[in-house]
Amino acid sequence: MGYTVAVVGATGAVGTRMIEMLEVSSLPIDKIRFLSSKRSAGKVLSYKGQPIEVELTTEESFAGVDIALFSAGGSTSAKFAPYAVKAGAVVVDNTSYFRQNPHVPLVVPEVNAHTLKEHQGIIACPNCSTIQMMVALEPIRRKWGLERVIVSTYQAVSGAGQSAIDETKRELKEVLNDGLDPKDLQADILPAGGDKKHYPIAFNALAQIDVFTDNDYTFEEMKMTNETKKIMEEPDLAVSATCVRIPVLYSHSESVYIETKEKAAIEDVKAAIAAFPGAVLKDDVAQQIYPQAVNAVGSCDTFVGRIRKDLDAEKGIHMWVVSDNLLKGAAWNSVQIAETLHQQGLVHPTETLKFELQ
Amino acid sequence: MGYTVAVVGATGAVGTRMIEMLEVSSLPIDKIRFLSSKRSAGKVLSYKGQPIEVELTTEESFAGVDIALFSAGGSTSAKFAPYAVKAGAVVVDNTSYFRQNPHVPLVVPEVNAHTLKEHQGIIACPNCSTIQMMVALEPIRRKWGLERVIVSTYQAVSGAGQSAIDETKRELKEVLNDGLDPKDLQADILPAGGDKKHYPIAFNALAQIDVFTDNDYTFEEMKMTNETKKIMEEPDLAVSATCVRIPVLYSHSESVYIETKEKAAIEDVKAAIAAFPGAVLKDDVAQQIYPQAVNAVGSCDTFVGRIRKDLDAEKGIHMWVVSDNLLKGAAWNSVQIAETLHQQGLVHPTETLKFELQ
Repeated sequence: MGYTVAVVGATGAVGTRMIEMLEVSSLPIDKIRFLSSKRSAGKVLSYKGQPIEVELTTEESFAGVDIALFSAGGSTSAKFAPYAVKAGAVVVDNTSYFRQNPHVPLVVPEVNAHTLKEHQGIIACPNCSTIQMMVALEPIRRKWGLERVIVSTYQAVSGAGQSAIDETKRELKEVLNDGLDPKDLQADILPAGGDKKHYPIAFNALAQIDVFTDNDYTFEEMKMTNETKKIMEEPDLAVSATCVRIPVLYSHSESVYIETKEKAAIEDVKAAIAAFPGAVLKDDVAQQIYPQAVNAVGSCDTFVGRIRKDLDAEKGIHMWVVSDNLLKGAAWNSVQIAETLHQQGLVHPTETLKFELQ
Repeated sequence: MGYTVAVVGATGAVGTRMIEMLEVSSLPIDKIRFLSSKRSAGKVLSYKGQPIEVELTTEESFAGVDIALFSAGGSTSAKFAPYAVKAGAVVVDNTSYFRQNPHVPLVVPEVNAHTLKEHQGIIACPNCSTIQMMVALEPIRRKWGLERVIVSTYQAVSGAGQSAIDETKRELKEVLNDGLDPKDLQADILPAGGDKKHYPIAFNALAQIDVFTDNDYTFEEMKMTNETKKIMEEPDLAVSATCVRIPVLYSHSESVYIETKEKAAIEDVKAAIAAFPGAVLKDDVAQQIYPQAVNAVGSCDTFVGRIRKDLDAEKGIHMWVVSDNLLKGAAWNSVQIAETLHQQGLVHPTETLKFELQ
């Protein structure tokens, strides 16, 4: 008596990782279905060694589906997730579209699994850069409270999808093998697919992820601010972010500064992080041990190190937080939500549809 | 009636840039001499189209030298700079060795050229990551005062010298052309040549530059703290840094958060930066204009953008600061110090030697 699980956006950078996570998941799965846009429909993917053909996503795709994992862009979720709910499925949505919707729990299971029981058919998976910061900060918030967060990110290009990975590799090869000057490279994807101008990422650092909002912060930066407040249920927590893309393919790194409400000893902070599920303490500077992007790739954990007191602020702490953006930042967090829904008996149809059919 | 100028460490990543800066400098130069260690002595470099042989640095090398630019590592400066001063030269030292010495002005000409008149034969050029931050922050400090600085850096590998550039290119090629996994790459230089362990930089971000100090900050981070206080003559200014190496060859980027003493309007901050010598405002997010490492390469300016208010702290401001670490961060700032010494009539021998001969 297992579930029928659908993956929408199965051929993308996150979708393929979702499939890998489902293959090793504890979720009882009877049937798996892969859905995509017209461009990828008809492709054949593998699930536990069996070939599965990718189907075109339509309003009728979700009959008989118990759990639908969406990662095909905000407009696909906006259009099809309500039909999935109407058909009786529970949706775990990896896009930003529903994250601030009051009917939608925004969940990092280690942090706020208790909000899952309020779901109305859709649960949102937070932004990759937010999730790993939540795993690092929640153990601190629980013991000492949080007053403010200032974060500067070092984000991998895979957060912008497979086309950004391909663009980065192509650009790097053109510099290293063909001798092009990085500033003369042709760019078509980064920093934001939907924005007007595109800039090279090879040997560069781009202080723009997603498009700009009216307050001169980017959407990515505002996601970190607004999602942190919602997940932690701390509307007054001060959070400001600077989100930066760097020429790394996989794993986001973050330089995080926090001020706690109560004064915390660094050794106690380290112990709290080490004891928190999903967090791994990597912090022994005498042995040059600190988290590194290349070592986090393929792991579902969030690695935390360089934990040290601010040189001046009594309640200020700096740290370095690294995780695989496609796994804990997206695919694993989504599958983990599905597993938690199952464990809590929350995989069931909703009675009233709260989401508009487009 | 020009000067005899010596460049110590002439064959290094910074030394070669120093030579380029001297070629276009307004400094009246009669004779140029290139000095190095045994490894590079005998090589022939070009100066304004003329071949010049590199000489071995000895205690006797500085007879007749008016200005000596040092960039061959702290131990070379420690050993030979006092002999240069003893021989009547003025030393501009690009290493960290003399920076906190009370007899040594630590100078970013746009910020504190007034301290040059106190020199006793040696002037120190600050660390690359400090210099560009000083150019961005000094116009703000002068108008509104500074209470605190929190900076996270995105530093180019060229700050660790030519061998680090070579290592980065080799690693990237091994991944892109030969299919190696980044975590399996062999590293011999980064993160710090003198430290025990070495880690790959290709597709990575290393939260270690230079070795660690007793307070769990790295020396690079403590340079930013201590040098900022000395240059700005603000011993009580709160400065904490997280210094990170990323796979970029040239130009450092910095995510800088400050709190001012007096409240400042963002438009006024932008105007103050735009009016400050050496600073260039690149800030129009509606047009996706912000500083980028690849565009700063080869320029002596410091580019500042993404200037915006903190979302919560009334006097908090975030910005993104980018400059060519080998030029304003080292070679140009050193040559600019020499030019300023000349303009102020301060290229003259000192009477009493304040520095120990080793």
